[in-house]
Amino acid sequence: MSENKIPYKIYLSEDELPKAWYNLRADMKNKPAPLLSAATGAPMSAAELEAVFCKELVAQELDNDTPLFEIPREIRDFYKMYRPSPLVRAYCLEEKLQTPAKIYYKFEGNNTSGSHKLNSAIAQAYYAKRQGLKGVTTETGAGQWGTALSMACSYLGLDCKVFMVKCSYEQKPFRREVMKVYGASVTPSPSETTEVGRRILAQFPGTTGSLGCAISEAVETSMGDPGYRYVLGSVLNQVMLHQSIIGLESKAALDKYGVKPDIIIGCAGGGSNLGGLIAPFMGEKLRGEADYRIIAVEPASCPSFTRGKFAYDFCDTGMVCPLSKMYTLGSSFIPNADHAGGLRFHGMSSTLSQLYHDGYMEAVAVNQTDIFQAAEEFARVEGILPAPESSHAILAAINEANRCKETGEEKTILFGLTGTGYFDLVAYEKFHSGVMKDVVPTDEDIARSLAQLPEVNG
Amino acid sequence: MSENKIPYKIYLSEDELPKAWYNLRADMKNKPAPLLSAATGAPMSAAELEAVFCKELVAQELDNDTPLFEIPREIRDFYKMYRPSPLVRAYCLEEKLQTPAKIYYKFEGNNTSGSHKLNSAIAQAYYAKRQGLKGVTTETGAGQWGTALSMACSYLGLDCKVFMVKCSYEQKPFRREVMKVYGASVTPSPSETTEVGRRILAQFPGTTGSLGCAISEAVETSMGDPGYRYVLGSVLNQVMLHQSIIGLESKAALDKYGVKPDIIIGCAGGGSNLGGLIAPFMGEKLRGEADYRIIAVEPASCPSFTRGKFAYDFCDTGMVCPLSKMYTLGSSFIPNADHAGGLRFHGMSSTLSQLYHDGYMEAVAVNQTDIFQAAEEFARVEGILPAPESSHAILAAINEANRCKETGEEKTILFGLTGTGYFDLVAYEKFHSGVMKDVVPTDEDIARSLAQLPEVNG
Repeated sequence: MSENKIPYKIYLSEDELPKAWYNLRADMKNKPAPLLSAATGAPMSAAELEAVFCKELVAQELDNDTPLFEIPREIRDFYKMYRPSPLVRAYCLEEKLQTPAKIYYKFEGNNTSGSHKLNSAIAQAYYAKRQGLKGVTTETGAGQWGTALSMACSYLGLDCKVFMVKCSYEQKPFRREVMKVYGASVTPSPSETTEVGRRILAQFPGTTGSLGCAISEAVETSMGDPGYRYVLGSVLNQVMLHQSIIGLESKAALDKYGVKPDIIIGCAGGGSNLGGLIAPFMGEKLRGEADYRIIAVEPASCPSFTRGKFAYDFCDTGMVCPLSKMYTLGSSFIPNADHAGGLRFHGMSSTLSQLYHDGYMEAVAVNQTDIFQAAEEFARVEGILPAPESSHAILAAINEANRCKETGEEKTILFGLTGTGYFDLVAYEKFHSGVMKDVVPTDEDIARSLAQLPEVNG
Repeated sequence: MSENKIPYKIYLSEDELPKAWYNLRADMKNKPAPLLSAATGAPMSAAELEAVFCKELVAQELDNDTPLFEIPREIRDFYKMYRPSPLVRAYCLEEKLQTPAKIYYKFEGNNTSGSHKLNSAIAQAYYAKRQGLKGVTTETGAGQWGTALSMACSYLGLDCKVFMVKCSYEQKPFRREVMKVYGASVTPSPSETTEVGRRILAQFPGTTGSLGCAISEAVETSMGDPGYRYVLGSVLNQVMLHQSIIGLESKAALDKYGVKPDIIIGCAGGGSNLGGLIAPFMGEKLRGEADYRIIAVEPASCPSFTRGKFAYDFCDTGMVCPLSKMYTLGSSFIPNADHAGGLRFHGMSSTLSQLYHDGYMEAVAVNQTDIFQAAEEFARVEGILPAPESSHAILAAINEANRCKETGEEKTILFGLTGTGYFDLVAYEKFHSGVMKDVVPTDEDIARSLAQLPEVNG
């Protein structure tokens, strides 16, 4: 193994850290559909969006044409604390699988937030700071995004108010505590602090909350104070832009060794990691310069690509956000509580939705007991204990590598290892003790929530 | 900041990974005192030690003369999964402190075990495997060493039996679960599975265990099956040898940029990180080639260097291990249960003890509320959430940097950031909520346990 020319980990130097984010939309013939006002059904103007989001981020959100956005020096300095992140050649996994495939993964878990979310958190916090704001509000489920944002805000001296889905707040006290180390205020959602929270609590007493509901509360809170704006860790075009750093670094590292992936695999919840990982590769594909198989992997318990509808929908339960055209299971869809593996959002990035709709990528849905099996197999040979989210991609990569074993093809597979599973050990324990079940919504479940799509779809 | 010539993180390439461990003892005029048989008071022979430890490791343990030990290729391959580890220039901390000091830290937390312990775990597991053993036994407190060993054993296909101090087993279920992901069996100690465990349970019903007791159980278990040997994560000479990789990489990284540290700081429990970090620097100091201030930082609640006695003592509570000459608080000393920051061993590496005795290094003891304060300050500017153990070194480094601010001296400080605090959030929560107290043993506490030193001291 040690004679191999390609090292276990390809590290770019800090000088090689990308100087600009890549905006995939610039190369799309069919642009993602615009955000619409829920009230009027008309496209949201910049001015309307600026009531919710930071000005500069709105510009990034609406810009479908500029291919490159320079990364400000301050953000690059922050990136240097944990980037460039390693691109790892999975020699040990290949040997374990006895596959002729060559497997690479981009590891985004080497920072305290434990995932790629920090890439966009620091960007969004930076633009809020530059706008002279006092702070930002957001929601978090298991807490990866909230942790990332609290780290970024603490670094910049910005206030950070996090609404954390109540069941996670209670069941995952450690993530909550990390946010507090970084000085964030963390409120269990639904809460009595917002109108939408009070309304939901009145309607569903004892509810343990949902991501969609926490979004509504965070948005309402930001709109009640001109010194605050709302920030979101996935789904939005701006987030895909910031996360392109993942793909740009991966491509630069592979290019150094003349390696071209055949298959690129990412897990998909709202799409932030997948969109970032595939960005420069998809760009080449869109421009007709190269071809890649691109696979989105989603949980069978929240299958927006594979069983959802491509339609305008609310991003939040409280319906205070604009409408986004995307693959959706309906804004009232809540994955089964026994689903442990994250990726719980009912919708999907509109950029990725358009690309999927146009046939530029595939999607598969996988069961959670299989992903934990893959996670454990991976951990034992590659050392890293993966996040359940990331393990969706691991499973798909293993499946592709096993197919190569059958056919003898020496394909090159690149997947995104978005984060570590250090805060997911309750789920690992469930898996070990045999308590974990596969939970798949029925057709009726999905039809019920899709029946509530907004009228704008006609 | 970005104009600075020295990057935020200095990464060596895989080719620059040290090819040999450095044995500090080779350069010591006064060698560490030999291990003695508790029964006879005579130095332990290789044959006697081989009943407990792997053959090759016994050779390393007893060799005070060979300066370099080649690192086998298989171990180097494993190291490549997470090494070379980054040497970080703490630009953000320097700015926060407004100090003229230049601060560097060697970060050993970028692996799933979360600390430097993996460096010796893979070495010890490798030699056990090469000896044709079925498995190894060990003890663990909070679980860092047990996790590291289970990762190493899983990689090599070796059985791993861990005795985990009972209070940690119950209060830290996540570390226990990580060990299970890696296939280890984990037994709360004291247990009914060993004679010494049964004896301690009979004598102290309801005891929550101690490290010294878990060591006794692990040793007894290994001696009951010829397919097993006992392995230990700190204190021993062999562990210092394996951990020299930390210092060798640090020195190679600094040498690349022509940087020479003035002060080198490491936390000290059993001494594995400190001994490893300082090894090549101390070597130069012993050979008269360079001078460095070397500072060991220990918890005020377990102050073996600063308040212990340099004497022969048992390494374990059950008194089944050989006697080691070291700074010790007495083998019956158990730090106050309110002490949260690790580094709980009553003794200290005999190599480091001899060096301290001979005046080659300093030691300071610090209070836990101060170390958590330093940990939080560090996390907020440098991003990484540090382990409480590592935060002892952070605090001492901050104190030295503040002294430089007063005097205007531009000293270069290197400290060891041994690991991450992701599994220490209960302690962080105690700190935040103001519940954490400083716990310092009285002179009477220490005199009481020192009164039980073995007779061999005369």
